[in-house]
Amino acid sequence: MKVIKFGGSSLASAEQLKKVLNIIKSDPERRIVVVSAPGKRSGSDTKVTDLLIQYAEAYLAGKDYTAIQQQIIDRYQSMADELGLHSAMNDVRDGLQELAKMDKNSPERVLDAFKASGENNNALIVAEFLAKNGLPAVYVNPREAGIIVSDVPGNAQILPDSYEKIYQLTERDGVLVIPGFFGYTENGDICTFSRGGSDISGAIVAAGVKAELYENFTDVDAIFSAHPGLVKNPKAITELTFREMRELSYAGFNVLHDEALIPAFHADIPVVIKNTNNPEAPGTRISSARTIGKETVSGIAGDSGFLSIYLSKYLMNREVGFGRKVLRILEDMHLKYEHMPSGIDDISIILREDQFTDEIEQTLIRRLKEELHLDEIKIKHDLAMVAIVGEGMKNSIGVAAKATRALADNQINIEMINQGSSEVSIMFSLENGQEKRAIRALYDAFFN
Amino acid sequence: MKVIKFGGSSLASAEQLKKVLNIIKSDPERRIVVVSAPGKRSGSDTKVTDLLIQYAEAYLAGKDYTAIQQQIIDRYQSMADELGLHSAMNDVRDGLQELAKMDKNSPERVLDAFKASGENNNALIVAEFLAKNGLPAVYVNPREAGIIVSDVPGNAQILPDSYEKIYQLTERDGVLVIPGFFGYTENGDICTFSRGGSDISGAIVAAGVKAELYENFTDVDAIFSAHPGLVKNPKAITELTFREMRELSYAGFNVLHDEALIPAFHADIPVVIKNTNNPEAPGTRISSARTIGKETVSGIAGDSGFLSIYLSKYLMNREVGFGRKVLRILEDMHLKYEHMPSGIDDISIILREDQFTDEIEQTLIRRLKEELHLDEIKIKHDLAMVAIVGEGMKNSIGVAAKATRALADNQINIEMINQGSSEVSIMFSLENGQEKRAIRALYDAFFN
Repeated sequence: MKVIKFGGSSLASAEQLKKVLNIIKSDPERRIVVVSAPGKRSGSDTKVTDLLIQYAEAYLAGKDYTAIQQQIIDRYQSMADELGLHSAMNDVRDGLQELAKMDKNSPERVLDAFKASGENNNALIVAEFLAKNGLPAVYVNPREAGIIVSDVPGNAQILPDSYEKIYQLTERDGVLVIPGFFGYTENGDICTFSRGGSDISGAIVAAGVKAELYENFTDVDAIFSAHPGLVKNPKAITELTFREMRELSYAGFNVLHDEALIPAFHADIPVVIKNTNNPEAPGTRISSARTIGKETVSGIAGDSGFLSIYLSKYLMNREVGFGRKVLRILEDMHLKYEHMPSGIDDISIILREDQFTDEIEQTLIRRLKEELHLDEIKIKHDLAMVAIVGEGMKNSIGVAAKATRALADNQINIEMINQGSSEVSIMFSLENGQEKRAIRALYDAFFN
Repeated sequence: MKVIKFGGSSLASAEQLKKVLNIIKSDPERRIVVVSAPGKRSGSDTKVTDLLIQYAEAYLAGKDYTAIQQQIIDRYQSMADELGLHSAMNDVRDGLQELAKMDKNSPERVLDAFKASGENNNALIVAEFLAKNGLPAVYVNPREAGIIVSDVPGNAQILPDSYEKIYQLTERDGVLVIPGFFGYTENGDICTFSRGGSDISGAIVAAGVKAELYENFTDVDAIFSAHPGLVKNPKAITELTFREMRELSYAGFNVLHDEALIPAFHADIPVVIKNTNNPEAPGTRISSARTIGKETVSGIAGDSGFLSIYLSKYLMNREVGFGRKVLRILEDMHLKYEHMPSGIDDISIILREDQFTDEIEQTLIRRLKEELHLDEIKIKHDLAMVAIVGEGMKNSIGVAAKATRALADNQINIEMINQGSSEVSIMFSLENGQEKRAIRALYDAFFN
């Protein structure tokens, strides 16, 4: 059994839904379909979810919402008309109108219910469309599917007990169409997942039914070994491990949100990223282990917006508890650090800059100075991180040499190298503005 | 004013003392002389300090100590005879005999007093010898000099107030000869410093009198850029900063014990390492800042006997407090870590192997696993660390490239690279047994 999830752009129009139909039809193992809300049909279009947020805001503010409500209904109606559907639209229309009867005392719940209706209505449409075209498809509500979540609107987490319930879906016949993005609390309230929510739903269902594969259909042929905006025709990656994917997402790849991979990782379900518009392309398969070819490096990614704080104190390494004191101060101040490489008498802390205001920065510096009795403290803003990632690097001699040579030849100064703490990546920190050049240089060195 | 310290081999015989005389005479700024106990005169000889330990042990055990006592007296006597000295020997003999009247209830104090007499007697001899040869030299007892220490036999620390008292030595005329290695507690008991104790005494006195220079005379021409046992005719280093010296000592250089540099570092007193047997050689000067030439690397050092523990957990970097929990466990178990580089979902901890027994290792692994809910934990024994050190590396492009290339060309696999946390070093961890080859390869790359 395969769980197949379609993103917003795959479901934005009648034309796209026809592609979806063919994809599902082409493989009888594609038994559970998880759908997003309709995305943009063109660059200037608005996602249904964004329309729903406007609708919710108007409703909550006591303003006239009839126009925006109608715009949303029309959006589904036009798809239904084009596809010749009738019955689903009654539920869609009723559902969208019912929203405007919710208790306004919990605006967060209102917002979550409005947003969730985007996926829910689309699942109704898709189910009717598939059924009308020869597939034994039925709509399955997330509550019925067993997707029971924690009561945190906008950032719900699946409850561990849910998986057993979800497994019961395997006993059902036909093609099950489940709206993504949300679940129900134990009290029966709708709560949405965080960013990338439908991806999360798909992974949860795949883990629950112990799927042989979780297929994530989007609008790119594959994950590429470098950002296509930076490198011309970068190589498509056919296979990645979960940890390679983690390193690449961390360092700037954002095809699939990290959180979406957690249920698949823990249940050891392979994930494949495929293109609805080009389903013949093999896509990128992400799993816990893969065959390692002769290529050492799978991908190169980079991100900017880091700062480093350099602490120096003579004989630091003899001071028991020094590192822990540093981490205690960061924790006190609710600052998350990315790396903390240490020398003998010095430690550098790398953090994301977006956590800082001038005031937070000053407080941190003052506390570190005063509480740790430092000889020196230096802060460096505007750093970028570039990572080369690959399972094949671990036992390969000369990878670091090749990478550092490529950077040196391009006159790029390396602020920091972090190799060996991760088995699948080497990270370089560089001055901001150098990361694009660095990615190109590294791509050339390892792929050209 | 310069403080000049002579090591045991510089004071082992009458012949050596004559060299010492010439060295002091040649510079009128050499006003304070700190002396070690007589070292070995030849390879098969025994250091006086070791004889004193035998004497102390015999005395404490209630055994006959007359033979060993006499052997020590004879050792000083033969020097005195050769140098034609008379008066100091009475004090030396009396002092050595008085030791055997000490209260045996504090064996640690007994041992410290016996050991300290090696330096003390030598200072008496040296002072008389210098005075007899035209220098206005006098013996100064450490208590009189103001060297007041914490009451920790074998590992005393200077008390901060001492420095003011020591400064009063600047008001005295002539050449002051002070025994190294020990001070007095506030109660008037003798306590010795740790390993390298006379070097520590010299640095303390240099800091106290605000000397322009602390000259440390030993039996090597200089600190070399790599170990002469590994590299043929390595380059002598003329200048180092304190932090370069720290990195080099840490990574295997042991000309001067780290602790000896602390007082000089804090008082910003330059230190020079020179050779009693070749005082014309410029030696190596260690100070807080130096002129940076075109050489990027100053020295290459290595050490073995490390282990690494690799911890991996999916989404580790989202877990607030993870690093601190790791450090808490290490601290609980009194384990000192050397480095703890982190990836996104993994941390490696590098520790010195000599802290471990099988049982400690098992306990640590179990605690890390249980308390941190890891996905994976791997321990790797027998690692070596090699460091390239140099103030000139900081802003130089291509140093890492050159180093990693040299290692790759010699088929040396790099387990870990730590660059950038320290401004003056790049550290590589390698499999044990590879460090010598690595040092040679790196030396070739940077110096040949």
